[in-house]
Amino acid sequence: MPPRYEVIGVEGIGEVRPGDDVARVVVDAAARQGTPLATGDVVVLSQKIVSKAEGRLLNLADVTPSTMATTFATELGRDPRLIEVILRESRRIVRMDRGVLVTETRHGWVCANAGVDQSNVDAEMVALLPEDPDRSARAFRDSVRAYARAEVGVIVADTFGRPWREGLVNIAIGVAGFAPLRSYLGERDPAGRPLQATILALADELSSAAEPVMGKLDRIPAAIVRGLPVAPSEEGSKALLRDPARDLFR
Amino acid sequence: MPPRYEVIGVEGIGEVRPGDDVARVVVDAAARQGTPLATGDVVVLSQKIVSKAEGRLLNLADVTPSTMATTFATELGRDPRLIEVILRESRRIVRMDRGVLVTETRHGWVCANAGVDQSNVDAEMVALLPEDPDRSARAFRDSVRAYARAEVGVIVADTFGRPWREGLVNIAIGVAGFAPLRSYLGERDPAGRPLQATILALADELSSAAEPVMGKLDRIPAAIVRGLPVAPSEEGSKALLRDPARDLFR
Repeated sequence: MPPRYEVIGVEGIGEVRPGDDVARVVVDAAARQGTPLATGDVVVLSQKIVSKAEGRLLNLADVTPSTMATTFATELGRDPRLIEVILRESRRIVRMDRGVLVTETRHGWVCANAGVDQSNVDAEMVALLPEDPDRSARAFRDSVRAYARAEVGVIVADTFGRPWREGLVNIAIGVAGFAPLRSYLGERDPAGRPLQATILALADELSSAAEPVMGKLDRIPAAIVRGLPVAPSEEGSKALLRDPARDLFR
Repeated sequence: MPPRYEVIGVEGIGEVRPGDDVARVVVDAAARQGTPLATGDVVVLSQKIVSKAEGRLLNLADVTPSTMATTFATELGRDPRLIEVILRESRRIVRMDRGVLVTETRHGWVCANAGVDQSNVDAEMVALLPEDPDRSARAFRDSVRAYARAEVGVIVADTFGRPWREGLVNIAIGVAGFAPLRSYLGERDPAGRPLQATILALADELSSAAEPVMGKLDRIPAAIVRGLPVAPSEEGSKALLRDPARDLFR
């Protein structure tokens, strides 16, 4: 039997509001469409649905930009209030040029605009990344255990750009229940040489695998990865953060 | 019906040698395991199988390092002959530090070691990237059309590292038969605002989706992505190359 797995979008989730129970909503929607969550599934959640449920929304009308935010906004040709929010969500600026602001978020992720996003929320509102996406993923995992008696892996995923390549890809910013890296360290090729490309970012690969069935218009903010063996682990997404000391691009 | 697709590894491909017909081998192996290639499939091929079939192999014993390669090799603590090969495959050095050599290949891809790889080839041999991975992908597509009467999309994929994140992911270095980018430009969210994350690197996402079923030990150098609608296109992988003028990290 060849190795194979399936990626299934979860339809019918509807609009999520602050305080909503994402696990309840996803468990019910998956069951309604005939693909109830089951042990061994990896559930990929869009950052947006998690942020909304956690109330990680800000109204730009309530934001007073600092002098620095106003200066940057002028240079970048952007809304000073939005720049203020991005700076508050960041702990370091990686690049600021040509209208683009790439920062390191408080979590350590390097991305454009600190993950602050204006689409799929009400006008004047912006959505911030979850405060602790690993905690969000763990809470979802625990609730699915309670609601559906299923032991699932969970990814909170967001679309990030990459240097050198066009187009965004979905990557993992929160992980629960499985090992985000898959290591071939110590294994050898048929010629007996140690493998070179030895550690794969499985959680990022599964985030990317889920994206094509997840509607960008927020209509399908969750997907199920089914049939792929993963290694149980409690390490969370931090394993995907490169140690700055080993990073040539900071 | 929820959107869903499947990823299927192709087993039983065996060792590929220079001059072998990769399309013949993959078409036959897919049929033998009961998943014959069909119209609408996207076939993901490992760079290594394509490079081997195309004879893109070099024996380090035949390589005489230049003075520059020897100097770099000393700084990096690596084999001067390997550095010589990497430099020959590159058109620009992006970073050289801490034992790592990141270059821009002749194709324009930015990656470690210009994609030159020592695993899964005989000792002293190295595998280079295909000369023109888009041409390799097109040739595979044309042969599948002839052998299996199936109209497939094709990706030649390699595992690349990324700045800021641990672990490698599979990405596309060659594409045929479908559009590697999926654009939401012009679409609006339910609040009527233009979407922000508007262009997704579908070919990279599908490369990543395929990796978990493709054996790193080269035993499964091909995978089938089945059931996902893709847009026919002849543009190839160049659409995934970021214009250096718009790149903040060169």
